[in-house]
Amino acid sequence: MSLLVTGSIGVDTVKTPFGFSQDCIGGSAVHFSMAASLFSPVRFVGVVGTDCPFDLEEVFAGRGVDLRGLEIREGSRTFKWSGSYEGDMNEASTDGVELNVLAEDPPTVPEEFRDSEYVFLANTAPGLQIELLEQLRSPEFVAADTMNHWIITASDDLKLLLDRIDMLVLNEGEAKLLTGQRNLMTAAKTILDMGPRVVIIKKREYGSMMCNKEGDCFVLPAFPTSVVIDPTGAGDSFAGGVMGHLARTGKIDTVSLREAMVFGTVAASFAIGDFSIHGIKAVEANDIESRFDMLRKVTQF
Amino acid sequence: MSLLVTGSIGVDTVKTPFGFSQDCIGGSAVHFSMAASLFSPVRFVGVVGTDCPFDLEEVFAGRGVDLRGLEIREGSRTFKWSGSYEGDMNEASTDGVELNVLAEDPPTVPEEFRDSEYVFLANTAPGLQIELLEQLRSPEFVAADTMNHWIITASDDLKLLLDRIDMLVLNEGEAKLLTGQRNLMTAAKTILDMGPRVVIIKKREYGSMMCNKEGDCFVLPAFPTSVVIDPTGAGDSFAGGVMGHLARTGKIDTVSLREAMVFGTVAASFAIGDFSIHGIKAVEANDIESRFDMLRKVTQF
Repeated sequence: MSLLVTGSIGVDTVKTPFGFSQDCIGGSAVHFSMAASLFSPVRFVGVVGTDCPFDLEEVFAGRGVDLRGLEIREGSRTFKWSGSYEGDMNEASTDGVELNVLAEDPPTVPEEFRDSEYVFLANTAPGLQIELLEQLRSPEFVAADTMNHWIITASDDLKLLLDRIDMLVLNEGEAKLLTGQRNLMTAAKTILDMGPRVVIIKKREYGSMMCNKEGDCFVLPAFPTSVVIDPTGAGDSFAGGVMGHLARTGKIDTVSLREAMVFGTVAASFAIGDFSIHGIKAVEANDIESRFDMLRKVTQF
Repeated sequence: MSLLVTGSIGVDTVKTPFGFSQDCIGGSAVHFSMAASLFSPVRFVGVVGTDCPFDLEEVFAGRGVDLRGLEIREGSRTFKWSGSYEGDMNEASTDGVELNVLAEDPPTVPEEFRDSEYVFLANTAPGLQIELLEQLRSPEFVAADTMNHWIITASDDLKLLLDRIDMLVLNEGEAKLLTGQRNLMTAAKTILDMGPRVVIIKKREYGSMMCNKEGDCFVLPAFPTSVVIDPTGAGDSFAGGVMGHLARTGKIDTVSLREAMVFGTVAASFAIGDFSIHGIKAVEANDIESRFDMLRKVTQF
């Protein structure tokens, strides 16, 4: 199945207890695509300014990422983010943001991508996520991410979005904020009542859980690793693994959803192993299979 | 195998978003024994004052808990604790403590218990845990719990204890404090280097993990439930399920340890479903088996 992602491309500066990485490539669409392309070809939609220091053709060389949806906008500047992690690195503190081109019109989905079947709308204003979705003819499975900022400031748009997507991927705190529930199981069920047929709640180093309208529930720990260098992009890498596997199988049944979460978890475990995209860039198919088997081995009884 | 527990008996007053329970029975040895007795007979060692409002024979009636190690000390008062939980209820805040009899000499292990094979030393001063341990002739498998207070104030005694026990059960924050490590996998390995052949790290609503010297690692989510009324005693109920199952099987191999953690997780899931011991008191063997199967169902792929 064809898989399209819309999201950000960023110039990131990240500080963790393990080092410092200045002006490295980041952004939700980038992290997502690095992971998803391990499983499936990816159609990439995003926008940068003419100042963008990265050659995305080179970044994604050999990975099956179709960049015909990449817009290099004249007179605009690329999104920049700088952040730092301390202690157990569970939460980034943002040191600086320049939205730049992200505060302008979203990119257009090119004609040749409009028949995309599987779609991931990375975190942005829900109104823009709907606009992007409306450019697609008849997507089969649409997933979206969101964040606290939109839950608070754009809840009406978010409700409209939730009614039009198949799966919401969000983190624990966001799920609680969105639903007003303090229990995660109750929050998950409340989100299903809002529209999506699948919800995945990410719990950072504690893993993730999935509930769907068929009543299935799956709880998965994170991959146990002592190599955590930079958590930036872990959530988008996870989503990339999930959607990449779903697009590969073309099925949204319980087995596929569970396996997709395992692949997402494995992709995230590589992503956090180095700064920027370096952790996942070196990964090969057999590395993925090997950690899939290891995750099964450490969780089964 | 015979299973002995030493720990506290408390008069608890607990406030959670779901209600208030005044002067109810609590304490580590009580919660442990309620859970462990679902799997194995328990030999109970603990001390109360003459003011103790509970009849422990009645509390444990029909559960196979041998109370010949219960001392009712003349002129002493029973341990009291009051605490409250807010929000996601992950952390109790202590509103009041009266150590009373716990600040005096520990109870004596009665002669007829000194041949105990499996032993759980619930949280208390590590020096006292060693004293209790020395009263046993040749225990086969000794597990202990500890807490931040002892890690900070009694680290020398704790090191001596770690050298003499087979398994340490502690929570995430304690594991990080004890080892100075921020990564849990590294913390677990560091603890194994300190002596025990098995370490179990409890992660509250996120489940638990186990590492042993044979190189096995097991990661288990908590039982997903929306019924969380009072988390008091969850950790001791978990330990009770773990030790109860291990004593029942008489084996400390990988399969038994993993299954023991599942039983501990299931026991804890019942314990948190009501105040004090009410959540676990009504549980029968088939309830345990049913949640064991459910936990397998929601975690397997």
